[in-house]
Amino acid sequence: MAILTKRTQINDAALDAVAHMPTRSLPVLISGEFSSALNDADYMRIAVLLAKKSYQEGGCPIGAVIVDNLTKRIVGKGHNTLVQEDHPYNHGETSAIRDAGRIDFSKTTLYTSLSPCDVCATLLYMRGFSKVVVGDVTNASGNESLLQDKGVAVEILEDPMGVALYAKFREEKPEQDLEDWQGVSAVNNPRVL
Amino acid sequence: MAILTKRTQINDAALDAVAHMPTRSLPVLISGEFSSALNDADYMRIAVLLAKKSYQEGGCPIGAVIVDNLTKRIVGKGHNTLVQEDHPYNHGETSAIRDAGRIDFSKTTLYTSLSPCDVCATLLYMRGFSKVVVGDVTNASGNESLLQDKGVAVEILEDPMGVALYAKFREEKPEQDLEDWQGVSAVNNPRVL
Repeated sequence: MAILTKRTQINDAALDAVAHMPTRSLPVLISGEFSSALNDADYMRIAVLLAKKSYQEGGCPIGAVIVDNLTKRIVGKGHNTLVQEDHPYNHGETSAIRDAGRIDFSKTTLYTSLSPCDVCATLLYMRGFSKVVVGDVTNASGNESLLQDKGVAVEILEDPMGVALYAKFREEKPEQDLEDWQGVSAVNNPRVL
Repeated sequence: MAILTKRTQINDAALDAVAHMPTRSLPVLISGEFSSALNDADYMRIAVLLAKKSYQEGGCPIGAVIVDNLTKRIVGKGHNTLVQEDHPYNHGETSAIRDAGRIDFSKTTLYTSLSPCDVCATLLYMRGFSKVVVGDVTNASGNESLLQDKGVAVEILEDPMGVALYAKFREEKPEQDLEDWQGVSAVNNPRVL
């Protein structure tokens, strides 16, 4: 018996519980009917709430959610763990893909709170994602065209909460932001790629 | 007091112990003098022995080692964990970089037993590696020129043991090889990138 049902209002409190619950335990939290009622903006908000969780842990505020195109169930999600795991490249997208495991990503859509970096964009087309929804092209890396060139459908769906959170983080911790994108070497030796 | 000293012969038995020992525990195994005596072919052999460890676990035989350019100490190493961790993109290079943590990779050299895939090649230049030594361009993806275009020095140093092991694996498990490179989606829907 799930806690969030078709009668539950879809709001940030409900979506935050979804964001925090381990993916494989989601069936104890959300019913199939609640899940079916979620739309693109809701999935993006879950990605942003994962970003917020990371920010509150002292990490980089970037999250991602992977949804099965047919069942509309969440099959993977996660957030950046540069700080939390001392992890030199685990971004929102890599975190969600790692969480999903060895599945057929061509049957899924990935929602990311921030435009993907070069590494994540490459991983997204190499794993055959059918579609990527990008929640922030304001604080952007601009790899949307690379994805489209490789046959991945791209949709822009900015979430103002996520855009504001990332801008705040970048203002507060510019070095952590640079390290997350280009590594410690870029912090020590600023360069233009 | 380390077990492997300047009087120890550098052979596969010694290098296999280095491959298996957790990176942060290496000082209990190898002395600074043993470490200083290692050359490029030895580091590559360690990467190959990591690949062999993965093969013996039922995984993909690809390993990598990261060495500090100044101290010549191993600062990260690992092997592919597609099977072992149900991990959809952890290759030899990503495994070694994850093991190394948040360090300045521009001061290091990465030795990989197999030519890097698109994702790993992108990660290598995005993290500012100064040099990459490639141990197998026979069973290759051919991203050496991409790395060079991005300013990473590339050296080819084929290890016959590693080349033979990878060819054997590809012959035995062609689907696992394809999944490791392009994901489950490529196994289900063969495509040309």
